[in-house]
Amino acid sequence: MATITSVDDPADPRIDDYRDLTRSDRRPDRPGGRGLVIAEGVVVVRRLLDSPYPLRSVLGVPRRIAELADDLAGFDVPAYETDADTMATAVGFHLNRGVLAVADRAPEPDPAELLRDARVVAVLEGVNDHENLGSLFRNAAALGVDAVLLGPRCSDPLYRRSVRVSMGHVLRVPFAPLDGEWPASLKTLRDNGFRVAALTPAADATAIGAAGLVGERVALLLGAEGPGLTAEALAAADVRVRIPMASGVDSLNVATAAAVAFHAVAAP
Amino acid sequence: MATITSVDDPADPRIDDYRDLTRSDRRPDRPGGRGLVIAEGVVVVRRLLDSPYPLRSVLGVPRRIAELADDLAGFDVPAYETDADTMATAVGFHLNRGVLAVADRAPEPDPAELLRDARVVAVLEGVNDHENLGSLFRNAAALGVDAVLLGPRCSDPLYRRSVRVSMGHVLRVPFAPLDGEWPASLKTLRDNGFRVAALTPAADATAIGAAGLVGERVALLLGAEGPGLTAEALAAADVRVRIPMASGVDSLNVATAAAVAFHAVAAP
Repeated sequence: MATITSVDDPADPRIDDYRDLTRSDRRPDRPGGRGLVIAEGVVVVRRLLDSPYPLRSVLGVPRRIAELADDLAGFDVPAYETDADTMATAVGFHLNRGVLAVADRAPEPDPAELLRDARVVAVLEGVNDHENLGSLFRNAAALGVDAVLLGPRCSDPLYRRSVRVSMGHVLRVPFAPLDGEWPASLKTLRDNGFRVAALTPAADATAIGAAGLVGERVALLLGAEGPGLTAEALAAADVRVRIPMASGVDSLNVATAAAVAFHAVAAP
Repeated sequence: MATITSVDDPADPRIDDYRDLTRSDRRPDRPGGRGLVIAEGVVVVRRLLDSPYPLRSVLGVPRRIAELADDLAGFDVPAYETDADTMATAVGFHLNRGVLAVADRAPEPDPAELLRDARVVAVLEGVNDHENLGSLFRNAAALGVDAVLLGPRCSDPLYRRSVRVSMGHVLRVPFAPLDGEWPASLKTLRDNGFRVAALTPAADATAIGAAGLVGERVALLLGAEGPGLTAEALAAADVRVRIPMASGVDSLNVATAAAVAFHAVAAP
């Protein structure tokens, strides 16, 4: 059972993990060094408790800590109770959701293991906007995507804002970097029986609903909003698919396009 | 041809339409009284110029005004050139995109006219988040939805933030309030040959891809994120459809769910 401890002083070193979050959020050592996984709000904290990331502590107002009591029963970590003002001073901004939790990172899974039981995976190239990345994970979770593989130039899915925007689903949908030289590394997917389908707005691509992907093992290759996939990535795919769009419309948001594509091939 | 006029004084009354935008954005008289349609950035300003809303003026830094010169050729309105600081002082915040345009509202189209040539329309109930509403219009434009009908408790699509988030597509996808008592007013759709399909996460609803809606005249009934459609609206629909979702996932964002549904029934 988590130990409930009252904290009155925003400078209390026991809550250092939560200090100046808007600053620590930007620190460069995030993914490697001491970068922590930070969950905000009861729903996302619950997802963190259910995740493989080792919980360090929880900080919240009494009402939120009470709400999480059952969830915290199996954890031998401190739960720091405080008031909204102390919390705001320590954290650096007012937190509507009234509760935070912090965990350590865990080793990333082996891509080969992720692929073994997967039917649909997303492979990302250059998705470097934290909100888009978070939304994409939320959509992946909802629409039955089994794993996400990160190609070059993607943001860190465990960045605080991505965790929040994903509603905690970055803690739930397994992800790993796709190692090796890009895009030759896509061969890993082919070797594991996946068809690599690149999503593109190109008019000569196949409409995604007509590409025969339903029920198949599919790796959906997605690029950033704006530039989209590089020519090299497009050339390395087995098939290029498009979402039919009205003329004169630039594009969909990348996470929205991903949702449409996930539903078209993955819907559980 | 728009008349280019230099403005150096942020207090110049000629740019009053642009003053304190963050305040005027909240004024209660928006839709009825003097509420203006405000476009930000070259792309959205172009959509405003292409729209039925009568242009009043443009305000921007010289580079952006020059970029719009061809587009403004047919308009007999002032284009105010200024520098970024003067603009920021007048507007009330720094504007990355460097150009704004203002138009009057126009009478809303008659729903009957909107429906005459439409194949797929969206009907919204309680979509009262300006960003979600803007995103929904962007997705509607991209995915070939012909019109949007506004049921009760929806926000104003011409609110500045909705215009921006929609990337100007609220100026392009026609919309109108659905008059009459809700949800009995849905009869209008049925009378015009539309099947009214309500989107719901309910497990006993029909998977949207299996509801036989492709190629049909469809009115997609969408509720707010969170509460969803009211029981009355659900009961008034011809068919209840769902997006198949993984278990344990709350829901998709309403604009994302709308995109998936639009693609499933409307893709052009």
